[in-house]
Amino acid sequence: MTTTRVEALSDGVFAIAMTLLIIEIHVPHVDTANASALGQALRQLAPQVVAFVISFLILGTFWIGHHNHFVHIRKANRTLLWLNILFLCTIAFLPFSTAFLAAYWHQPLGGVLYGSNLLAAGALLWLHWVYATAGRRLVSHDLADEVVYSGRRRVEMGLVVYSVATITAFLWPPISLVLFTMMPIAYMLPGRVDRHLEQ
Amino acid sequence: MTTTRVEALSDGVFAIAMTLLIIEIHVPHVDTANASALGQALRQLAPQVVAFVISFLILGTFWIGHHNHFVHIRKANRTLLWLNILFLCTIAFLPFSTAFLAAYWHQPLGGVLYGSNLLAAGALLWLHWVYATAGRRLVSHDLADEVVYSGRRRVEMGLVVYSVATITAFLWPPISLVLFTMMPIAYMLPGRVDRHLEQ
Amino acid sequence: MTTTRVEALSDGVFAIAMTLLIIEIHVPHVDTANASALGQALRQLAPQVVAFVISFLILGTFWIGHHNHFVHIRKANRTLLWLNILFLCTIAFLPFSTAFLAAYWHQPLGGVLYGSNLLAAGALLWLHWVYATAGRRLVSHDLADEVVYSGRRRVEMGLVVYSVATITAFLWPPISLVLFTMMPIAYMLPGRVDRHLEQ
Amino acid sequence: MTTTRVEALSDGVFAIAMTLLIIEIHVPHVDTANASALGQALRQLAPQVVAFVISFLILGTFWIGHHNHFVHIRKANRTLLWLNILFLCTIAFLPFSTAFLAAYWHQPLGGVLYGSNLLAAGALLWLHWVYATAGRRLVSHDLADEVVYSGRRRVEMGLVVYSVATITAFLWPPISLVLFTMMPIAYMLPGRVDRHLEQ
Repeated sequence: MTTTRVEALSDGVFAIAMTLLIIEIHVPHVDTANASALGQALRQLAPQVVAFVISFLILGTFWIGHHNHFVHIRKANRTLLWLNILFLCTIAFLPFSTAFLAAYWHQPLGGVLYGSNLLAAGALLWLHWVYATAGRRLVSHDLADEVVYSGRRRVEMGLVVYSVATITAFLWPPISLVLFTMMPIAYMLPGRVDRHLEQ
Repeated sequence: MTTTRVEALSDGVFAIAMTLLIIEIHVPHVDTANASALGQALRQLAPQVVAFVISFLILGTFWIGHHNHFVHIRKANRTLLWLNILFLCTIAFLPFSTAFLAAYWHQPLGGVLYGSNLLAAGALLWLHWVYATAGRRLVSHDLADEVVYSGRRRVEMGLVVYSVATITAFLWPPISLVLFTMMPIAYMLPGRVDRHLEQ
Repeated sequence: MTTTRVEALSDGVFAIAMTLLIIEIHVPHVDTANASALGQALRQLAPQVVAFVISFLILGTFWIGHHNHFVHIRKANRTLLWLNILFLCTIAFLPFSTAFLAAYWHQPLGGVLYGSNLLAAGALLWLHWVYATAGRRLVSHDLADEVVYSGRRRVEMGLVVYSVATITAFLWPPISLVLFTMMPIAYMLPGRVDRHLEQ
Repeated sequence: MTTTRVEALSDGVFAIAMTLLIIEIHVPHVDTANASALGQALRQLAPQVVAFVISFLILGTFWIGHHNHFVHIRKANRTLLWLNILFLCTIAFLPFSTAFLAAYWHQPLGGVLYGSNLLAAGALLWLHWVYATAGRRLVSHDLADEVVYSGRRRVEMGLVVYSVATITAFLWPPISLVLFTMMPIAYMLPGRVDRHLEQ
């Protein structure tokens, strides 16, 4: 089994999850005679817009991680397909968690649900990579140890931050938002993974 | 006619049906001053979340089945395109059946509609495979009988379970839910089909 | 310019338009203590389900037509890209026309809007083919005249039936529904186009 | 890193953003005994339909621009992936801006939000091209200067018009609509970019 269609299905789920995020932001209904009321209604959408951007970028980090895995994964088997489908299930759930966070970001439950969703996604992406690379199961036999480890560490970094953010949400909900925002920014910086990809 | 675009359209419909499932789960509106009310509102979403996960995994089994067919199908003709489109029509209908099941899982009609939808999808996937392999019509001439039969049996297993679950829904609705949940778990186990794919 | 991404974008729009159709069918809210009320509420969804299936199959005919064009179209230019985008615009509009038809199928306006949408899609598909094949502009130089003409006649057949159905909708709305339903069934039968594709 | 999956994700986001535009147009609810009321309700949807068509065509111009970039971009790195994801974020936001414009096109805020969204998309597409071509970073080493400059100028033309339209929206909202409509028509005309692609 080649990986072409696995990647096509995954790209589809990512593209839709990313774009569906916008559906949760509704156009406000205001009396059009009152221009300042419209501006105010728009400003009240700020939490939703911020949540949209954060989730879009976080989906971007997961997509890049998934993409980097399949640069190295040469073939698929039933277990890998299912690990991927379970991973995609957590990705498809994110538009709900995002809308929930946008509505209840000032409450512990908002950040806890959102963080748990990201943790589940990260854990499955980690399993996906570990399963594929253990004993070079589904990757090239001569894939460097360095690539296997740096790929794993990159996902583990996310797991640590999402855990901290989820715990923080219990105590100081707004601070967890700062942590969620910082993650994609950290992932934008090039790392060891890239050095290998560019060689 | 090659099968590239047939697979692309199918992956698209699957990816969207999977991701649209989440749209049916709405963020609850509660008085934010009351934290315990929010937790309770979230717990009341449990049937929807369970239905989301079951349908996502069942869509996963259909996608893997469809994917496995196209590992062997070499070309397409008008009849195959239409069998595929009718199959995709039942896949695209599943987000509605899922939302209906989530709302009325304790009523016979919930499981009956859901089970009938799965039966229709399974029957069309069965026809799709039988049509393509009869007389090796659209597959390689030297495809082993074993592959043809094990592929067919795999779909028939689903048809039997979905029939039983649909009948059960008439009598004991909650028990049919257990059967629907067991199906994707059974499909996660490797079978004869995989042995052939790995050779 | 190759046609790979044109086909990818088109498959995406088709897959989404097909799957979005289901979003217009809402789960009815009934008192769950009353089982017969649920059955009745479900039966009242019949026009929506019929409209869903008709539109899904009609989108199927357009997709197969579009697919058959790109079997022969070898390259793209700006004009072809735009004809394709305008065609996709009419495809993306169909979920609205379908929901409108489901709500007002017994009124002239329901069938007229739906038929006009199909006519616009058909006219743009016709233009797309005529533009690409005129003087063998974007197809192989040795493409047989027979292929060019049978491809064109196939689209023209649709234009005639959609015109008749639209006019019929003015006078006897329910009869136009029969005509809309017959179209995909007629397109399921193999024609001259297929004979060429299979050679 | 090859660009195949970057293009697949982008085509997915474009196809979904284009098709989601229709979701914002709701079927009106009118007393079906009154045929003229239905016609009137349909006519009241005119601003939404116009906004749908304008946004579909503008998304078409961005898609063609993005497509033309990837005809020349040979490889991807982390920075390019992120510029692309930020660009897609502005594309995914457009269904909201479009619905907002349809509701408030006669108010400055309608056109200002819409124009700002297009400006953000255009600015990121510009950065994407400049980053990829600077020092021939991710394109072929012998790509002609002419191609680099004409590609850049094409995006800059859009930035100028969207700036003017946004400023106009502050003063005469309806006139900004005319400018937004003219853009895709101007982009439909072939330019220097095409001459290079056809050689």
